[in-house]
Amino acid sequence: MEPYIHKIHYYETDKMGITHHSNYVRFMEEARTDYLEKQGYGYTKFESEGITSPVLAVECHYHRSTTFDDEICITVAVEQYTGVKVTFRYTMTDEKSDKPLFTGKTEHCFIDKNGSPVIVRKKYPLLDALLKSLAAKDGEPV
Amino acid sequence: MEPYIHKIHYYETDKMGITHHSNYVRFMEEARTDYLEKQGYGYTKFESEGITSPVLAVECHYHRSTTFDDEICITVAVEQYTGVKVTFRYTMTDEKSDKPLFTGKTEHCFIDKNGSPVIVRKKYPLLDALLKSLAAKDGEPV
Amino acid sequence: MEPYIHKIHYYETDKMGITHHSNYVRFMEEARTDYLEKQGYGYTKFESEGITSPVLAVECHYHRSTTFDDEICITVAVEQYTGVKVTFRYTMTDEKSDKPLFTGKTEHCFIDKNGSPVIVRKKYPLLDALLKSLAAKDGEPV
Amino acid sequence: MEPYIHKIHYYETDKMGITHHSNYVRFMEEARTDYLEKQGYGYTKFESEGITSPVLAVECHYHRSTTFDDEICITVAVEQYTGVKVTFRYTMTDEKSDKPLFTGKTEHCFIDKNGSPVIVRKKYPLLDALLKSLAAKDGEPV
Repeated sequence: MEPYIHKIHYYETDKMGITHHSNYVRFMEEARTDYLEKQGYGYTKFESEGITSPVLAVECHYHRSTTFDDEICITVAVEQYTGVKVTFRYTMTDEKSDKPLFTGKTEHCFIDKNGSPVIVRKKYPLLDALLKSLAAKDGEPV
Repeated sequence: MEPYIHKIHYYETDKMGITHHSNYVRFMEEARTDYLEKQGYGYTKFESEGITSPVLAVECHYHRSTTFDDEICITVAVEQYTGVKVTFRYTMTDEKSDKPLFTGKTEHCFIDKNGSPVIVRKKYPLLDALLKSLAAKDGEPV
Repeated sequence: MEPYIHKIHYYETDKMGITHHSNYVRFMEEARTDYLEKQGYGYTKFESEGITSPVLAVECHYHRSTTFDDEICITVAVEQYTGVKVTFRYTMTDEKSDKPLFTGKTEHCFIDKNGSPVIVRKKYPLLDALLKSLAAKDGEPV
Repeated sequence: MEPYIHKIHYYETDKMGITHHSNYVRFMEEARTDYLEKQGYGYTKFESEGITSPVLAVECHYHRSTTFDDEICITVAVEQYTGVKVTFRYTMTDEKSDKPLFTGKTEHCFIDKNGSPVIVRKKYPLLDALLKSLAAKDGEPV
């Protein structure tokens, strides 16, 4: 699958001259959205089924700084899926030099329109099958 | 009325070493929210009446740059109110030196839960009276 | 010239369910950066010559709201160039429906590394010629 | 020490109606800056000594969502200090209900103007003593 590319915008830099560290959490969201879309289970599908997927935890490891105009290459994988929660893993490298920039994780649950937790394993067989198969391919054992 | 104070955060600066110009649109929103709250017509009241107030236009004039840790003093006034639309005027000065930093305007309409335009003059007498009186005090003739 | 495309990210939406209005100032910056790059006078060239181009004024007119996943098509033109200041004009339309979304302007001066104003007409003949020709093509008379 | 208060701005919310999770990384920065200032070692002092403190890692645990107008109470502590790196720990609670909202950590190193790592233990005795004493009070053994 094609990795997601994010080109750093001027407004994403800070006084230190580098991309502000908070923005990488946003880049992970961009890449995750794109990844699920490409898997055939994009946001519109989530929405039409009345579920959203709030973030429970985030982990960021910054290896090299970036700055305006740099192109970041982001790959996404499903690290773990329990039937109720899913963890994504992200690897960012510099598009030109291929040097490692960042690794991170985000953990999510699923909730319905009333904010109640959704057991994907029981209620959403298609999403369940997809996440299971992605975790089997790239993930770590639960 | 007490002006609203915004202290510049590190993440609001950019590679040029100054506060990124897009953030002033956010500072205007912060100050407007605070201003309406202090006038007794805060966001909760708007929401309980089922109206929101989208932005139609923004105008920004940057006089002096600011940077991390600077404190910006923001005053808000109602520039114009037509019974349907309202324009706010903002003046930002440096808290320490009192030097002018920024002047701006935002123009708003009002919509109900279905996204239909609301004629405040007809439907919301209290809000209408408030905006009229604020415009009479600080504003320019329609 | 190819227009610049910005796809709305989830983090750019707000509680109203639409793209927060402050983000359009950032979209204008993205499109302007891309435009100058395509004209052969990108940020790297500016930087190598020791000049930056702070924003003096911004104008935004919001015609239709957008939301997550919408693709915005942005065209940029030089509205006016005085030899010292330049004004860009932006038109945003919906990529799918071609409906008008937003029009805006940004006005800029140029400063050197010490923050002193730069008279482009006198000091930077190449940039001067470029801005003159762009203004002649798309702009309004000074 | 007084905890740091952050009131959620409208532009910090997203389409889900809650504060976007990326903003908590910014709230941690706000609180850390305020904390070091109150300890007598604020950003100006760092800058005058020619050191900056980039972020190496971030950890976020979201317990309850927040939304516009909520006030978040943030306490900061030094979790660990090695003489070269420092880890801060953050606890966010709801100002009104005192309910837990978020816990997080940020890990930092120190670099000089050339981007070279700084061994605080050897070069900056005052900062070293401060971080040691804060870690002794609130932190965990290295």
